[in-house]
Amino acid sequence: MAKLYFRYGAMNSGKSTGLLQAAFNYEERGQRVLLAKPQVDTKGDDEIVSRLGVSRRVDFRIRPDDDVVQLFRGHASGEDPDALVDRLDGVPPVACLLVDEAQFLTPGQVDDLLRIAVEEGVPVLAYGIRTDFRTHSFPGSARLMELAHSLEELKTICRCGKKALFNTRKATDPATGEEHYIFEGDQVAIDGVEVTYDSLCGGCYLRESGGRLG
Amino acid sequence: MAKLYFRYGAMNSGKSTGLLQAAFNYEERGQRVLLAKPQVDTKGDDEIVSRLGVSRRVDFRIRPDDDVVQLFRGHASGEDPDALVDRLDGVPPVACLLVDEAQFLTPGQVDDLLRIAVEEGVPVLAYGIRTDFRTHSFPGSARLMELAHSLEELKTICRCGKKALFNTRKATDPATGEEHYIFEGDQVAIDGVEVTYDSLCGGCYLRESGGRLG
Amino acid sequence: MAKLYFRYGAMNSGKSTGLLQAAFNYEERGQRVLLAKPQVDTKGDDEIVSRLGVSRRVDFRIRPDDDVVQLFRGHASGEDPDALVDRLDGVPPVACLLVDEAQFLTPGQVDDLLRIAVEEGVPVLAYGIRTDFRTHSFPGSARLMELAHSLEELKTICRCGKKALFNTRKATDPATGEEHYIFEGDQVAIDGVEVTYDSLCGGCYLRESGGRLG
Amino acid sequence: MAKLYFRYGAMNSGKSTGLLQAAFNYEERGQRVLLAKPQVDTKGDDEIVSRLGVSRRVDFRIRPDDDVVQLFRGHASGEDPDALVDRLDGVPPVACLLVDEAQFLTPGQVDDLLRIAVEEGVPVLAYGIRTDFRTHSFPGSARLMELAHSLEELKTICRCGKKALFNTRKATDPATGEEHYIFEGDQVAIDGVEVTYDSLCGGCYLRESGGRLG
Repeated sequence: MAKLYFRYGAMNSGKSTGLLQAAFNYEERGQRVLLAKPQVDTKGDDEIVSRLGVSRRVDFRIRPDDDVVQLFRGHASGEDPDALVDRLDGVPPVACLLVDEAQFLTPGQVDDLLRIAVEEGVPVLAYGIRTDFRTHSFPGSARLMELAHSLEELKTICRCGKKALFNTRKATDPATGEEHYIFEGDQVAIDGVEVTYDSLCGGCYLRESGGRLG
Repeated sequence: MAKLYFRYGAMNSGKSTGLLQAAFNYEERGQRVLLAKPQVDTKGDDEIVSRLGVSRRVDFRIRPDDDVVQLFRGHASGEDPDALVDRLDGVPPVACLLVDEAQFLTPGQVDDLLRIAVEEGVPVLAYGIRTDFRTHSFPGSARLMELAHSLEELKTICRCGKKALFNTRKATDPATGEEHYIFEGDQVAIDGVEVTYDSLCGGCYLRESGGRLG
Repeated sequence: MAKLYFRYGAMNSGKSTGLLQAAFNYEERGQRVLLAKPQVDTKGDDEIVSRLGVSRRVDFRIRPDDDVVQLFRGHASGEDPDALVDRLDGVPPVACLLVDEAQFLTPGQVDDLLRIAVEEGVPVLAYGIRTDFRTHSFPGSARLMELAHSLEELKTICRCGKKALFNTRKATDPATGEEHYIFEGDQVAIDGVEVTYDSLCGGCYLRESGGRLG
Repeated sequence: MAKLYFRYGAMNSGKSTGLLQAAFNYEERGQRVLLAKPQVDTKGDDEIVSRLGVSRRVDFRIRPDDDVVQLFRGHASGEDPDALVDRLDGVPPVACLLVDEAQFLTPGQVDDLLRIAVEEGVPVLAYGIRTDFRTHSFPGSARLMELAHSLEELKTICRCGKKALFNTRKATDPATGEEHYIFEGDQVAIDGVEVTYDSLCGGCYLRESGGRLG
């Protein structure tokens, strides 16, 4: 039985590297994969870029109102992605669908991923961030936590050496040039606003936030 | 470092048994534990009851507006639970807090559990149901999925032998006496309404719901 | 696809409780299970006994020279266990084989468990101790660590509150009546020699053993 | 508390990539790591090479008679690796030791890794192959399965799309040029003998081996 996997982690935990390695493993064994990411993630345009220095073009991007089952079938069949057709002779079946930045999917699109696993019989590996800088889920990650057959953590470390649990946002003070943590703002920083992120353990997060969670 | 663990599963996956076994393991080694459950869970009153036939009284119940850190400190110190005092001489420290039916906690109370682990240094084992009969999180389980250091699945099986992923609700038709699946209604069935539940895999759930998820 | 699971842990980590809960979960859903344990484990005779107070009779015991595939087929068919026959009409198929104290199986019998999962299509849940009081595997657990599809830890705690990793053996000095740790002796204590065990973390084990591992 | 982790998998499951990503994550947060591999693994000489195209030089190689605690301390201190000295001022402490191809360590060297975690307080991430082409452990992986605090599987897939469980060896017939599976031979192929490997699930392995395990 094919399953939906959610491989979640803090920022900079190696999610894109993991996705690219999984794709490599399938293809090395002669199997075909499809790679996708949400349109809203503009980092790298059509590429999935790993901080280790590896990158690769996705097969398709997912807009907020897309039906992912239909998109998947279109690309799997080798036909026009908007068409809903049977697989053509000569196009090998898809062995796995890999989705990067899955936290940006809508809840309904995560439902689609479950349907692709359960009804189309194709395993789906969704990689994504668990929570934002205020310790709250993204729409896609909240739904993946509800639906995925398997929740697998990708770990990284806090500045203190413990496992990182949360993400924090930093902004640079234009006057002094110094960076400081901020705990207010939109879930996704608006283009033009210069922010950076780092991943902290529970203790370091609570110290920086003055005891505040979300 | 103490951690917050969320041991989640479908209904009837053995959560209460797991909790009672964990408490037993601590006490067998001479360590003190505290057991708690939400007030709203009236099943068994002040008892945690496992379907295997084991049961045990909780140390305290958590009402929706309780501050769980304060409750914990009060009980840990051996003082009146409403008091916020230091540990008394002669009362051994608490080695673990175990919470049953943690899906019924409020999000703020889950924040409290994280604080107990991180700031009080006491491990917290929270056991709970992942999603309701419409595949949506409960308030407590949604927050635990965001905050817990470790997400550990307690598995059970579907009628078809696959791992169960979702819970379903059944009602008895008063006319015919037959049970049938229902996909509408409140998250928690109101007292007096006779319903039963069973746990299904993704495929069986989608078949019963006519393809509907939530 | 059916799998072989090895649920391993230190002594007193709740393995028998876990096994009995899993059996209960299957049967509650109307499915048939078989329970087995090695003949060499004389504790409880034909019973699997959990320290929580639950117990149950096994369907068969496994002697060192038994072919477990053949034993399984005999019991699954409802026929004489020594016969190798097809399933009879009216006997429901076996949904799961559960084996307690699996560390005492021979390596070849663990091979049999894998064959039952892969070739007979029946999931096998094997519960057992990871290592003896000198940090070395038992024959069955070493082979399970090589073959099982899934390795799942059942945790318990050390006297210091950390996760227990190893088992230690204690003997009572006949002169003084005091218990002390011993690090020499047979893997399984011979009947008549009074020993007890406790489970320690890596640090506490190394302190008691004077830095010795195995 | 620092732990010893064994991240095991079949061949070509992405172990070296995982190790290099973990090292990257530490260094990105300003922390110092040490990388090591056994001398006997001559692939890539002093480099850890990932099939994704990333590589990096190790800090030291471990010969079969080396004391790894001593080697570690020497390199951690920044002194001559054969010296057993305290850390020098100005050399940052080591936040993590990462060991590739850990299946080739001796059992005593795995004991050393546990000591580094427990007694030196430095986490050790050991990456290695679980079993050889005849489903038997390597000396280092057998010991890691006994001692590691955490066993974490790195997955890859079989030619049939299921999770790979075992490794198989293939040799080329010099007469026909055809590859065929072989189930006899030394655990590590002697230099000069041309062999290749692939990773199979339990079912495909048993089909190729004619039902033989080890």
